Amino acid sequence: MTYKATKIVIITEKLVLREVIRIIEGAGATGYTIVAAGGKGSRGMRSTSRPTVVDEFGNVKIEVITTSRAIADRITEEVAARLFENYSGITYLEEVEVLRSAKF
Amino acid sequence: MTYKATKIVIITEKLVLREVIRIIEGAGATGYTIVAAGGKGSRGMRSTSRPTVVDEFGNVKIEVITTSRAIADRITEEVAARLFENYSGITYLEEVEVLRSAKF
Amino acid sequence: MTYKATKIVIITEKLVLREVIRIIEGAGATGYTIVAAGGKGSRGMRSTSRPTVVDEFGNVKIEVITTSRAIADRITEEVAARLFENYSGITYLEEVEVLRSAKF
Repeated sequence: MTYKATKIVIITEKLVLREVIRIIEGAGATGYTIVAAGGKGSRGMRSTSRPTVVDEFGNVKIEVITTSRAIADRITEEVAARLFENYSGITYLEEVEVLRSAKF
Repeated sequence: MTYKATKIVIITEKLVLREVIRIIEGAGATGYTIVAAGGKGSRGMRSTSRPTVVDEFGNVKIEVITTSRAIADRITEEVAARLFENYSGITYLEEVEVLRSAKF
Repeated sequence: MTYKATKIVIITEKLVLREVIRIIEGAGATGYTIVAAGGKGSRGMRSTSRPTVVDEFGNVKIEVITTSRAIADRITEEVAARLFENYSGITYLEEVEVLRSAKF
């Protein structure tokens, strides 16, 4: 009843959310989910070197489900290459199962 | 130390949360986690055709962990069949590992 | 382009967040993500026997990504052993894929 799909997860600073969405839609994905998040990155507080008020939920967690591995790879690579030089964040992939009837 | 379980994830409109919980409990699952979410569905904004104020976090993400694949399948199929005709949303399954000592 | 890592997920009461972070950092993990959550545990409401106002998002969901399975096991076992006797919560592991360039 189910088939395999890939979930792309991106956790980064709220102020680059718009740019992340542009990358997701540019790669051909048609939907995404956003959750407010806080946390700490591997290089200390998940914030930038710019002066900023680090609020508890200054990060966002964005998730995309796609049945195309090529789209998943493109999103995760573009986010890392274009954003994570200047903004803190992580991105990773998970294998999920979706219903055969689902539309993506 | 761990054994396999299934995580069911449902992302849908906040106003059907109560109905989703009824399906979860009716299938025999004993716990769930709710997170406020926003986002965009495959058919445009994740909202209905009814006039509504689409707020940033008008969606909910509900997660259920179960060691019974039958319960997982029943929840995901009932949610899709009973709710996603009229409300936007997605549901998918993930394989997770739980501690042997955990109770579900 | 990617390699395997483990995601540890801990969902528990907000008031033990500081203790969870201490366990995460004590195990050698260098980053984590926190999301506000609500829900119901397997033993009824996810709250303690202490008198408390159970607000909608009185729980937290904490996620850690690590390439060390030993660190993942240590975090999940310590959280269960030290906190879940007195506080409600669940913890589970998921396999994820991270970019080769990622730092953890």
